[in-house]
Amino acid sequence: MIAVIMAGGSGTRFWPRSRRAEPKQFLKLTGERSLLQATVDRIAPLVPIDRVIVVTNARFVDRVARDLPDLPRENILGEPVGRNTAPCVALATAWTESRFGPDEVMAVLPADHHIGDEALYRSVLSAAEAVALRDGGLVTIGITPTRPETGYGYLELGEEESAVKGHTVRRVARFVEKPDRERALAYMNGGNHLWNSGMFVWTAASIRAEIERQIPDLATGMNAFRDARDLAAELGRLYPGFPSLSIDYGVMEGAEAVRALPGDFAWNDVGSWDALRDLGSLDEAGNAVRGDAVLVDTSDCVVAGDGKLIAAVGVRDLVIVQSGDAILVCPRDRAQDVRLIVDRLSESGRDGIL
Amino acid sequence: MIAVIMAGGSGTRFWPRSRRAEPKQFLKLTGERSLLQATVDRIAPLVPIDRVIVVTNARFVDRVARDLPDLPRENILGEPVGRNTAPCVALATAWTESRFGPDEVMAVLPADHHIGDEALYRSVLSAAEAVALRDGGLVTIGITPTRPETGYGYLELGEEESAVKGHTVRRVARFVEKPDRERALAYMNGGNHLWNSGMFVWTAASIRAEIERQIPDLATGMNAFRDARDLAAELGRLYPGFPSLSIDYGVMEGAEAVRALPGDFAWNDVGSWDALRDLGSLDEAGNAVRGDAVLVDTSDCVVAGDGKLIAAVGVRDLVIVQSGDAILVCPRDRAQDVRLIVDRLSESGRDGIL
Repeated sequence: MIAVIMAGGSGTRFWPRSRRAEPKQFLKLTGERSLLQATVDRIAPLVPIDRVIVVTNARFVDRVARDLPDLPRENILGEPVGRNTAPCVALATAWTESRFGPDEVMAVLPADHHIGDEALYRSVLSAAEAVALRDGGLVTIGITPTRPETGYGYLELGEEESAVKGHTVRRVARFVEKPDRERALAYMNGGNHLWNSGMFVWTAASIRAEIERQIPDLATGMNAFRDARDLAAELGRLYPGFPSLSIDYGVMEGAEAVRALPGDFAWNDVGSWDALRDLGSLDEAGNAVRGDAVLVDTSDCVVAGDGKLIAAVGVRDLVIVQSGDAILVCPRDRAQDVRLIVDRLSESGRDGIL
Repeated sequence: MIAVIMAGGSGTRFWPRSRRAEPKQFLKLTGERSLLQATVDRIAPLVPIDRVIVVTNARFVDRVARDLPDLPRENILGEPVGRNTAPCVALATAWTESRFGPDEVMAVLPADHHIGDEALYRSVLSAAEAVALRDGGLVTIGITPTRPETGYGYLELGEEESAVKGHTVRRVARFVEKPDRERALAYMNGGNHLWNSGMFVWTAASIRAEIERQIPDLATGMNAFRDARDLAAELGRLYPGFPSLSIDYGVMEGAEAVRALPGDFAWNDVGSWDALRDLGSLDEAGNAVRGDAVLVDTSDCVVAGDGKLIAAVGVRDLVIVQSGDAILVCPRDRAQDVRLIVDRLSESGRDGIL
């Protein structure tokens, strides 16, 4: 199996820790290893490092190489511009075909998620590989909902197929866009929906067939990448013309055969500062603390300092972050609105701090 | 008239801006000038600089000299240890007597307050000088209450005496300790109470007589200071043995004749970070902002940065301060509780950050 790690993020939701020059996948939010490093570490027992591909923006190729010194340099694919995940998958498919042929299984994995139970995660991935080989088509890892989350897409499940390696296999009836709270609650209680985690498993031939059928323009590019003598030149020539399209919307929703394996391995997409309360330990007042902090009568906060002392008295449910030359304060339930700050800074031409 | 500026504060209520090495009187909280500098500036039309005395802790003598380069060095009196304001007044009285004789009028003024209407302030001080000369006894400047403040002591007023220079003169019936809210409200509405601002005017002879009568031990020290050839040596010998006593509690409350002049010159004791909202301008959302800040959907906050960008989304009524290597976040109505942080840091031996 090949592991395709999608590390193209340039997100702003962890500003001021994440910056344009240091997006989320490179942050050490959960321990000594960056999210990217942790992603590679966690699949290492299944996929040796020379079968790992990292797709990232061209300007982060050196940064990825620094994070992953054992990764062969030619396994880092630099996109000249970001075009969401469908072109990224097409590129990785071309690379896989040219080196390992069309029957190779690819596990497509985001670089910036957290997994609590790594052994179970590998067991599910391994079962998904077997399903991809046995049944063809596209396989996705779904997460059993543990809360009525309105921020994710959902998979509506269809008929059950025979289990593989002890893991349930379900057909996916359809993809559901982010629901309102009432429907999210019904999905959670109904037992027939999974969170769409963005982790996929398929053979190169299976995903190629769907791309050819659904996004012919992208398929042309995919062929050019597969046959290129100078891949970087082809990327520079073709990438800017690609549509910006997610693999979910561009391929998965219209695919002919999609199967899902439920995963209950404590997945977290590390979507905002608030996620830090779900990763790692809390103090006795429910605060997630990174760095140097003195908290008095302060509860249920996320406090993350980077060299400075953060002191708080009498606050709750706040995010307080210091990183380098900037400080962020917001309520936990508005952690997503960090982008409003980033927008404001961008509008006023303060790119140096982004 | 002599101006005695009491600059002995080592307060912690403006941590992390105020530090042990840089207490409040040296901070530029309200503009380009420190509170101490502003205090001297504001009395300059009444009192030439060579008649200004600053009493401070011995370790701040150089710091005061740097803030006030025109002040004669011998006018900076360094206390070897802090013993509250009564010993400070005794020392200043001795200094005044030895240079100008017992009939000299002294205006005793805190170094760390803010005055909105400086012309009116000088007019009241000038009237107080005339009262001190006409009537003897002790004169205090009281502030007409504008809110039911429970954090100050009050002056209960007695009979009215003949006005001086257009300013009302009242006997003080008694000093009242910090009241509860109900009494504070009654004081504000009753028109018979003033805030005790800690600003006093008297002749050296008048305050000497009260110190001799009420605190004989301190009077002995006062005589020694007056007659000393080597004042620093006498201070080192006697100061540690003095009781720690405020001039209010030690002298004013038991004094035989105290008069008050009401002052309505927009006085502010700059008691905590929250005071910044009463000094200087607010943005359209009611935030008092110092330094570099980006505020989105944020109102009625005090935001003070010192070199770093402070960004906030969706918060209100918070104090957010960055200064040097530390950050403070607390609700405005708990700004006084900064001392809890300072206590905690002190207990854990982190003196470097205090």
